[in-house]
Amino acid sequence: MELQVRLRQLIIFFFLFLTVLEHASSSRILRIAKPDRHDIAASARWLVSQNIWGVLSTLSIEHDGAPFGNVVSYSDGLPGKGKGIPYFYLTMLDPTTRNALKDSRASFAISESPVGTCKRDPMDPTCSKLTLTGKLLQLDEGSEEEKVAKKALFTKHPEMMDWPEGHEFSVFKLEIMNIFLINWYGGAKSITVDEYLRYKE
Amino acid sequence: MELQVRLRQLIIFFFLFLTVLEHASSSRILRIAKPDRHDIAASARWLVSQNIWGVLSTLSIEHDGAPFGNVVSYSDGLPGKGKGIPYFYLTMLDPTTRNALKDSRASFAISESPVGTCKRDPMDPTCSKLTLTGKLLQLDEGSEEEKVAKKALFTKHPEMMDWPEGHEFSVFKLEIMNIFLINWYGGAKSITVDEYLRYKE
Repeated sequence: MELQVRLRQLIIFFFLFLTVLEHASSSRILRIAKPDRHDIAASARWLVSQNIWGVLSTLSIEHDGAPFGNVVSYSDGLPGKGKGIPYFYLTMLDPTTRNALKDSRASFAISESPVGTCKRDPMDPTCSKLTLTGKLLQLDEGSEEEKVAKKALFTKHPEMMDWPEGHEFSVFKLEIMNIFLINWYGGAKSITVDEYLRYKE
Repeated sequence: MELQVRLRQLIIFFFLFLTVLEHASSSRILRIAKPDRHDIAASARWLVSQNIWGVLSTLSIEHDGAPFGNVVSYSDGLPGKGKGIPYFYLTMLDPTTRNALKDSRASFAISESPVGTCKRDPMDPTCSKLTLTGKLLQLDEGSEEEKVAKKALFTKHPEMMDWPEGHEFSVFKLEIMNIFLINWYGGAKSITVDEYLRYKE
């Protein structure tokens, strides 16, 4: 009998352990709940603050001006203190960086899918997606904005601190000129850059 | 005593249920293990076959030729039978579609991050990323390729079957002209389109 009880305890412990493990390995801990879909500015800013990577597109020098998308990590600020402007840590070895220095026109696209709150297909309109179009600009080294951006990047992506110095990493930002947001049925939602940037987390 | 035993059974069942639930809700079941990183063609094709969404970039009509990235779902074939060519199901209401019909130059970027096999930051070179550059072409309705592509799309994205007819969805493919793959340290890996397409899953 005692053996049976022990066995049961062991089984309980095993499943408890598995459950904790699953939770620990899930990609994201949501810090802020998804806002009401009718609040367009809140929805856009939430998506930018909760996600950590997206695709940055520039005009390719190598491929005759074709659009070149590239998977990159980003940060719009310290957790809970984002300002909506995506900052990037890019190396001169990357074609995206070289493209941007020649022609700054760029866009940055992110999906709600990696955040873990989508219940349907990544292309279903209820799974938010956002494209910020504008100019990809290099920040002056040592400037106030560069220091703040670097802190924002290194906080969300601690590994960046160890990236090789010889690769000439440098901080860039996307100066936003247009916002394309889909967060529900009915096509892209109307939101100005001013409405987006004014929103306080 | 019997009550205690029942209670234990209930607790066991509860944790078992939670564990199953967690597994069921995890985004991906890996059908094929990640290939050896030295096999460049296998690595690229594996990433395309295992992922289900990415960012498709075109040249924006609305924004003066700026690159416009857009989150989209895709499929390169039935599970285990992919051919490496990404197919998309796009509506004429989408700016990406309108852009492509004016200028077909496009790129498609995907990350290993959603597959669930990355152990580090999405921008760390050990977390694979792939950009296919080429032409985004609309397939002829009713053609053999369109039928195969639609089946590939609907199998990986069953929700697509219910998307509204009035939105004029149509099948597109990316005719690949260049491959940019990072799947380890040391910069982009060298692979030709021919090597990529010839590879058999």
